[in-house]
Formats: sequence, structure tokens, C-alpha cells
Amino acid sequence: MKARGYVLLANINSPKDLKKLTIPQLNKLASEIRSFLVENLAKTGGHLAPNLGVVELTVALHYLFDSPVDKLIWDVGHQAYVHKILTGRRDLFPTLRQYKGLCGFPKMSESPHDVWETGHSSTSLSAAMGMATARDLKGEKHNVVAVIGDGALTGGMALEALNHIGHEKKKLIVVLNDNEMSIAPNVGALHNYLGKLRSANNYQRAKDELESLLKSIPAVGGKLAHFAERIKDSLKYLLVSGVLFEELGLTYIGPIDGHNIELLLAALRTASQTNGPVLIHAITKKGKGYAPAEADSVKWHGIGTYKIESGESAKSAPTYTSVFADTMIRLAEQDKRIVAVTPAMPAGSGLLKFGERFPDRLFDVGIAEQHACTFAAGLATQGLKPVFAVYSTFLQRAYDQLIHDVARQKLNVVFAVDRAGLVGADGETHQGVYDIAFMRAIPNMVIMAPKDENELQHMMQTAMAYDDGPISFRYPRLNITGVKMDEEMHVLPIGKAEIVKEGTGVAILSFGHVFELAEQAVNQLNSEGIFPMLVNARFCKPLDEELLLRLAKEGYEIITVEEGAVSGGFGSAVLEFYARNGYHTVPVETIGIPDYFVEHGSVKEQRQEVGLTAERIAASVRAILPVTKQRA
Amino acid sequence: MKARGYVLLANINSPKDLKKLTIPQLNKLASEIRSFLVENLAKTGGHLAPNLGVVELTVALHYLFDSPVDKLIWDVGHQAYVHKILTGRRDLFPTLRQYKGLCGFPKMSESPHDVWETGHSSTSLSAAMGMATARDLKGEKHNVVAVIGDGALTGGMALEALNHIGHEKKKLIVVLNDNEMSIAPNVGALHNYLGKLRSANNYQRAKDELESLLKSIPAVGGKLAHFAERIKDSLKYLLVSGVLFEELGLTYIGPIDGHNIELLLAALRTASQTNGPVLIHAITKKGKGYAPAEADSVKWHGIGTYKIESGESAKSAPTYTSVFADTMIRLAEQDKRIVAVTPAMPAGSGLLKFGERFPDRLFDVGIAEQHACTFAAGLATQGLKPVFAVYSTFLQRAYDQLIHDVARQKLNVVFAVDRAGLVGADGETHQGVYDIAFMRAIPNMVIMAPKDENELQHMMQTAMAYDDGPISFRYPRLNITGVKMDEEMHVLPIGKAEIVKEGTGVAILSFGHVFELAEQAVNQLNSEGIFPMLVNARFCKPLDEELLLRLAKEGYEIITVEEGAVSGGFGSAVLEFYARNGYHTVPVETIGIPDYFVEHGSVKEQRQEVGLTAERIAASVRAILPVTKQRA
Repeated sequence: MKARGYVLLANINSPKDLKKLTIPQLNKLASEIRSFLVENLAKTGGHLAPNLGVVELTVALHYLFDSPVDKLIWDVGHQAYVHKILTGRRDLFPTLRQYKGLCGFPKMSESPHDVWETGHSSTSLSAAMGMATARDLKGEKHNVVAVIGDGALTGGMALEALNHIGHEKKKLIVVLNDNEMSIAPNVGALHNYLGKLRSANNYQRAKDELESLLKSIPAVGGKLAHFAERIKDSLKYLLVSGVLFEELGLTYIGPIDGHNIELLLAALRTASQTNGPVLIHAITKKGKGYAPAEADSVKWHGIGTYKIESGESAKSAPTYTSVFADTMIRLAEQDKRIVAVTPAMPAGSGLLKFGERFPDRLFDVGIAEQHACTFAAGLATQGLKPVFAVYSTFLQRAYDQLIHDVARQKLNVVFAVDRAGLVGADGETHQGVYDIAFMRAIPNMVIMAPKDENELQHMMQTAMAYDDGPISFRYPRLNITGVKMDEEMHVLPIGKAEIVKEGTGVAILSFGHVFELAEQAVNQLNSEGIFPMLVNARFCKPLDEELLLRLAKEGYEIITVEEGAVSGGFGSAVLEFYARNGYHTVPVETIGIPDYFVEHGSVKEQRQEVGLTAERIAASVRAILPVTKQRA
Repeated sequence: MKARGYVLLANINSPKDLKKLTIPQLNKLASEIRSFLVENLAKTGGHLAPNLGVVELTVALHYLFDSPVDKLIWDVGHQAYVHKILTGRRDLFPTLRQYKGLCGFPKMSESPHDVWETGHSSTSLSAAMGMATARDLKGEKHNVVAVIGDGALTGGMALEALNHIGHEKKKLIVVLNDNEMSIAPNVGALHNYLGKLRSANNYQRAKDELESLLKSIPAVGGKLAHFAERIKDSLKYLLVSGVLFEELGLTYIGPIDGHNIELLLAALRTASQTNGPVLIHAITKKGKGYAPAEADSVKWHGIGTYKIESGESAKSAPTYTSVFADTMIRLAEQDKRIVAVTPAMPAGSGLLKFGERFPDRLFDVGIAEQHACTFAAGLATQGLKPVFAVYSTFLQRAYDQLIHDVARQKLNVVFAVDRAGLVGADGETHQGVYDIAFMRAIPNMVIMAPKDENELQHMMQTAMAYDDGPISFRYPRLNITGVKMDEEMHVLPIGKAEIVKEGTGVAILSFGHVFELAEQAVNQLNSEGIFPMLVNARFCKPLDEELLLRLAKEGYEIITVEEGAVSGGFGSAVLEFYARNGYHTVPVETIGIPDYFVEHGSVKEQRQEVGLTAERIAASVRAILPVTKQRA
């Protein structure tokens, strides 16, 4: 789509073009960008609400600063669409989040204006601190600006970074994009007052005056500490109140209206003239300017295609996640030990319904995977059965806690590893392909993956019945296969695979939801008169050693299939088993994700690219079977 | 050692015995415990200074609370010796940190009083929150107490936990063991005032009075926010000032003298009667009561054996770490891109000297591995060459950052992975055995390990010259081997192994410092007339594929040796290579750390236990060579 009808936007091909505009024109441009976003994303889907919230902020940043000499860093990164539009990528939006198209996150290979790639939350402050430190060491003078949301700021690593930023006092600008805040009026009024004071030119003078005034009231000294004891109870409040930032050594400007370009420019200008770290607190509205998104910013955070007029969006089919969610409720009804822990993903994990049914048994701890994992471990020490529902890619954040707190203490924590495997449009930052490898190295772990949604429920029952340490099951970001769901759930024997079809010569060991592909391959092969054995492995750890020994003794060649990194994955576990047991002559071919980061696209395209398809599995069998036996 | 001469301590066999004592007797007991610690640790070594700092605190906790019904959680855990002494383990102290002896950290298998195991920092608040939540769900009434140091509190996960604790308002006691603070006098005075106010019985009334007083000074309202702008600039100050805790919804009591048992008991009593989270801020002195340790608490944090009178301690021999540290300085002199990042380990990493030589180029970011890693990534985006010096076990905390921020963006961050392999007396919480496996699964990583300290310097030179993404080298917590150090450093070819000795039939592929063992094995075998090939692998990723193919074609059997988990480790990489390239008939035996957590002891004992010895390697060769060829 060309920017037809977008009078100003049509002529913005780089941030340079922006600098020629007047403030009224910038406001008009913002309005055009909103229409452009709503029009384009209706056809591609994407993170609409967050981007509608940062239109003016992004325009102001590119108007005032000189990217890419000045460094603009977008925390999480799903709100960088406007930045992309303004930096020469406007006409690529019809390809957004599509295979070989525009990435939904900052991407260095797309533009020199993308100086830092994100996808996971809370990394921007650390990156900015690194860039500012490097700048000073090299004697350079440019600005470094990080834009971070109020949610991301509560992640542990962002707080670690703030501690360092305040300590080192480097020149650096943090823009707090606060789009959820609801401060009580009086506090808000105080802040507006401070905001005006501080972003004014006489900021330093006013500050000095206030401080001397303050010192002249000695009687109040002792009571000042009670400043703290007002009406709020969350870290978020503390963060956005400015107290934390000032204590940390950052100059605080705000809160200001993040949709007012003039105010934003004034604040950013003040910040860029300040010799030290500054935090600008901008209040924005997610979904701003598009009524359906303003009304329900959670739904419109990330959205599929939709109709612009009505806001009607494509219905989503039932997913593995919804089966997980429904099953959690059924299990929790039977077993009151069961509780659920989610790191800021009550909707994404499907646990909202669980929380409605069992309000005391769902714990949303915020963007805090480390705490979530060890909190679950603490619950487990007291005989509860915590289910830590976490995306595979975010479980990476809790790796030490998984090792040190859960597995080492052999605690009964259940890991529900969602978005395992290739995740489609979110691309390389969100691929769930390392969990098998990184969990497999850890003692005491049980690692399962269901072949379909029916087996998912049985594995969940199995996990609840297991009481000898941590146990995990992984499931994909995919619609369900549609198999019949058993009415009764049952407990699967630990470490036992399922032989789905006996066969000869070759055994396909499939781990997890890629069973679908293995089964397709076998059906095709059967129609050709080729009959490999088809095994649903179920367990990566412990392996079904009895079956593996049988296959070795009976002379099978093995093909392993998994939607995970082949380096260290399920196939590797099979290789290790045979090596350890003296069956080094068993041929094992490992099919999975090769050793590179897989970019965005549909899961189907990604599978095609990496060679994780039914055709590939069938071809591997055909390449072997001519030299082995076939069923008569 | 029996508790001879310790009149009171000799009769303390469980916390119950403590409760019979008077306050003066408790003070006398504290004094005996100090002597007992100093006397015992002189012979065993251990974490002396931290434990001398918490004697009164531990006595007070066990006097007031009813462990193990009430839960006592020790963050990091190296300060739990006094707790062990009071809970029936006094007479085991001669075995402290020794093989099959008393663990240096809390250990559930030792005592029901150890309700949570630690070793890594900042986990206690999450665990306590889990336990308190479980208690309330189960309708129980006991206390949950976490003791956490001021350093540990700045770790990201502790801050994540505080956010959750303040939000949920569960009854829970956090004791902040503040042993490093140096608040300016006026601020300290304010805090003492608050401490008195708050721990007094009329706390709530006083608080109410102050608040109404505060509200009656409207003119001051706007300026109160400047309360923030006093004389401090670190998160630590904010934490210990009480502001943060009160903002978060915790009741703050303190600061109080952590060596005054009466004050501690009063504070703990108040806390246990408060229906919600309370933080008690106790000021303690590391090394308290033993002059040498008071004078240099860094040196006496963890110490080897020493003479009690003089405080003279056993001289430590040069280590791999000291070679790393010296080489860093040499490299940084030649190359000004080089900077170093450490997460609160400037001494442990050996980088103190580097920091003296290049004060602008060493960054100690506190206990903050996540931030450290991504900060390094930020530095790398600007063309610097950051070296992230981190213990293998703590790199687990930065795993997502390694994947998402460093490897995925292919940034030139150097990972100096110290304490890799078995670490001896610190035991299972600190074993550095997973890094090979968890790094190997990640695309773009280069993974090296030197066979000795001379090769370490060459690998460091290699890492500095490498400019195609992240590169790591791992080295052990061991003394150097004593090989001759080359004067000139040189760059090793990436992915090339070193054939140290040609041989026949069997090739031993050794990865890293266990080369010492492989070489011993080969020397022994040679004396028996058996001549395997001895290879120093140098690289785990990328592998020396040319060599592996040669070995396959020439019919060698392979034995891999590594001091790391065999699940997913170097040996697994070799297996995968052969499987991927159709050489499945090459026999590969993988020697390394088996799949369980290895407890404390000497490295030698640990190696013996897991079968990672020269004898074992030699035996494996002998088991093969009778059926293969031997050198004429």
C-alpha cells in the first residue's frame, strides 16, 4: 500500500523530512499516522493499541533528535511501528509480520535507525546504559533515549539497570510511557504541579528555592519520611511518582500528556540539555484515536485482521492454550492443592477463566519470571501444587530459578510451557525452541510434550499426580488438531512412549505436537507401501529406555522429530542414550530446528524453511527403507 | 570437636533449649557462639565474617520463633552457620564444607529446620512469599521470616518479589541484615527516630498523629516531593531508608542495632503481631567480635584455614582466575575497546587490579547478572569489546539476556566463564556444570575452553580478535597447572582442535581444563604400551569438523572428556555431528558429570565420585584397545 491520501505522511521518507514541518503540521501528521496504522493493520494484524499510544511521542522524538546518531531504544519493541513509518519503511507495512516482510519489532538489518532489537521486556535501560557508557568512553556527544512502558519497568532487570544508571550519572534519557496509570486526583495534581515546575526553563532555580524552603521548616523534618505513607501500595505507583527516580539520582520530569507534541518537545529539550540521567514521565492512552481500541486495549494490544468501521475482528479457533486453561479448572476442582502462577500473562496463558473460578488460587506476579518461578517453589515446599504457566521464550528468564530453586530442591512445581516451538508472526525474539535443550541438562526434571490436545489433558493429570520433583509439558501456539477429547483424564506412566503404529526398519520417534507431521508422513508412506514404526515419544526425560533398547536390538533405524533446537534436544537425548549403552551402531537422524534464529512468518512457512515438514520426514524414511525391510 | 568450654552452648541441642535462657544468658551464649565459630573455622575455613555478623539476630529469631513450624529462610545461605549450631548441628562443625560433612548452606536433608535451600542470592523473598501464601490458603497461622542482606536486596528478583509482597499484603517478616551501610549522620538520626517511633507500642497512634500534622501544612505539600532530593544516589539508600518499603506497603521498623538482642526481640515481636508484611532493618557488622575479620570483612567473607591469634591465613596459590585477571590488563593495554563488566564480583573475578589500572573501564553493576549481560550488549553495539566476567553458575541468571540480547543480535560480547566445572566446598548450588549445555543450544555462540592457563591467555587474545558475535571461554576454580607461559599471546583458529599426541585406535577428545586428567591417563597408558590419540578440543562450538571426519574415516573410537553435564554437553555435540553427517557407526563414549546435583567436598573427591578421573579415562581406553590396534 502506498501512502495515498496521506498528504503529509506521503512525503516523510526519513526523519529529516519531519524536521521541516510546523507544530500544527506535526499534529496533522500524527493524525495521518493513526489512520495509516488503523487502515494497514486491519489487513495484516499486529500490535495496534500500543502503537496508537505512542504516535505523538515518536513524532516528537524524531523531530527533536537526530537518529541514528542519537540512539532511540524501544523497550519490548512492539510499539516501534510509528518509528518504522517515519524511518523509510512506510510502504512496507502491507508486509508487516509476514514471511520475508517487515518485522513486528525493531530489526537492525531493516534500518540503521534500529540500533537495538527487542521483543522481550525490560531490556532497554540496560542497553541504553551500555550505549551511553560507550559514548562517554569514546568522547562522543549524542543522546541516548530509551522508551519503556510502566509494566516493563517493574521487571527485575529494569530495576537493576536503574540502580546502575542512578549510580553512574551518565547523560541518558528514559521516557516512561505510562499507559495504564490511574493515580488518585490529589496525587495527580501534585505531579502536574511538579511537572510544570520541572520542565520549565527555571527548573534548577525553582528546585533550589524549594529545597532551601524545605530546610527552613526543621520541625517537619522528622515527619517528612511519612511522605511515603500515602494512598498507594504498589511498586508501580512508587515508580511513577518520581520518588524512586529522584532517589536514584535521575531528574524527573512529569507527568506530562504524552499526546501533546509541544509538551513532549519541551520536556525532551530540557532532558537533552541536562547533564545526567533524566526520566520523562509521559501519560499516554493505548489505542488512542481508534474507538474500539480505546475501549478495550487488552484485546487490541495484539490483534488479527479486523473491519475498520465496526472493529469486528477475526474469530479465533480453539487453541492448545484454551484446552490447557479449561483443563486447569477441571483439575483444580478435584484437587485443592493446585494453584496457578503467571508472570503478567493471565490472558495470554488462558488463566483468566481460572482466576474467575478460583480468585484465591491464581497469582499474577507481573513481568517477573524469576520471582514467579521461585514463588512457585516456595508454594511447593508447603505441599501445594503450583502450575507455572509461562511461554517457552520467557522461561529463559527463570532458568537459574528453575535449576537452583526448583530442580535442585526437587520441588513439585509444574511447568506449563506454552508457545513451545515455532511461534509464527512474532518471530525470532519469541521462538520457543530452546526449552527442551535447556531443561534437559538439568537433573530431576521430567519433560513431556503431548502429541495433541487430548494428550495434553492427560499429561496435565499426570503432572498433578507426580510427586517426585519438577515436571513440565510443552505445547504450541497453534489451533487444536480436533481429535476427540477423552471424557476421563488419566495418568500416563512416567518415561513411557506410545507406539502408535508398529512398523519395520525405521522408527519415527516424534516428541510433542509435531506428531501431526509425523503421522501425515506415515499415512503418505503407507499409501506407497512403506511401513515405518510411528512412536509418540511423550517423554524426553526420562526416555523410554526399554523401547529404545528394543528398537536397537531389532535393528531399527531411528528418525527423531521435534519442534525445538536439534542442538541438545530430544534427538540428542536419544543419541546420548545409545552412546551410553553401547549401541553406537544404531543410526539416528535428528529432525528439528537447525542452529540459527528463525525469523517471522507463518508457522507453516517457518517449518518449510527449516525443513520440519511431513514431506521431509517421509523423504528421510524413503531414503532408508529401500535398504531395509518393508512390510509384506 | 565437642563444645568443650562452651558452658551454655554445650547444652543447646535444639532451639527449645534456647528458650529457657535469660537475656543476659542469651548475650553470653552469643559470645560463646562467636568463639566457637572462630575456633572451628580456623581449621575448616568457611564464611566467617557473615556469620559473626548474625549471631545475635539468629539467637533472637530462634528464641522468639518456633522453628520449624515458623519458617526461617536465609538468603544466600552462607550466613546460616549460627542457625545450624542452634539446631542440633553444633558438633558437626569440624566437618564443615567437607565431603559428606556439614554443608556450608542450608540443606533440607540435614535438618527439618532448613526449610529452604540457598546459595545464589536474592531468592529468599520469593520463597517466603510462596510459603506465606500457602499458609494462608491452608488456613495455618505460623510466621514466615526471610533474612536478606542489603546487597542481595538489589538483585532484580528480590525487587520483583517485594512488588508482589507489597501488593498481596500477606503477613510476612523480612529482616534486612544491613552490614555495609554508611548513612550520613543526619539521615541516620532521622532513621533512628523513626525506628524508635515505629517499634514502640504506640506506633500506629504516632503514625496517625504525624500524618494529620503533615496534612495541616498545606504550603509544604508541593515541596514534599523534594524530600527525595537529599544526599544519596543509590538504590541501596532508597531501600534502607524505609521509603521504598513503606511505598510498597510493608511496615518498616528500624534501623535497629542488629547486635542488641533485646531490641531485636522487641522488633520481631512487633512484627509477629502485625497483620501484613513487615521489614525490620537491622544494622550489623560483618566479622563482629573477631578483630581481623572486623578490619577486613571482604577478605574474611569466605576464608581458608587461619591462625586464630594473628589472623594469618593460608596463602593462596596462583589460580586460573589470577591468570585471567593479569591477562585482561595486558590485553586492555593494547586495545582500548576492551572493558570489563562484573556483577558484584570485582574481587572474586580477579578484576580489582584491572579496575585500579583502568578505573573507567571496569563496571561493577551489583548483584545484577541480567543487567550486566545486556549492559555489555549495549556497550558492544557501539564497537567496544566488553568482557562479562561471571561464574558459570551465575551466568544461569543471565540466560535470556545471553540468548535474546547478545546471541540473537550477534553482538561481540566476550563471556569469561569462571568457576566452570566442579567447584569444591561450595557444593551443589555453585557447581559450574551446565554452561556448556545451555550455551551450546544457542545459535551464533562460540564456546572455548583452555587446556591450561597458558592456553587461557591465547583464548583471551582469540576472543578479543573475534568480531562475528559472542564468544566464551570457561575456566575452573583451580590453581594453575604450572606450565610455561608463552610470552607472546596469539590468536587461535576458530573451530580448530589441537592434536597433542598422535595415536591409534582411540582418540581422547578433551575439552578444557580436564585435559590434565586426559594427559595423565595417556602417560599411564603409554607406559603400558597403549597409544591413543590425545586431542585438546579447544572448541565445543564450532567443532573441528575436519578432525572429526578424519577420525571417523580412519576408524577411531572416540572418548570425550569434559567437566560439565554430559546431558547436552561437548560429548553430545560430537554425537550430533556424527549423526548429522552419516557416521553413526563411530563409537563415542562421553565422560563428564552425570545427571545429578553433586554435593560439596574437594574437587578431587567430587571427581572421584562422578568418575571423572585419569584412571577412569585410562580404563575406558583399555576396554577398547585390546580389540583395536596398538602402536608398534
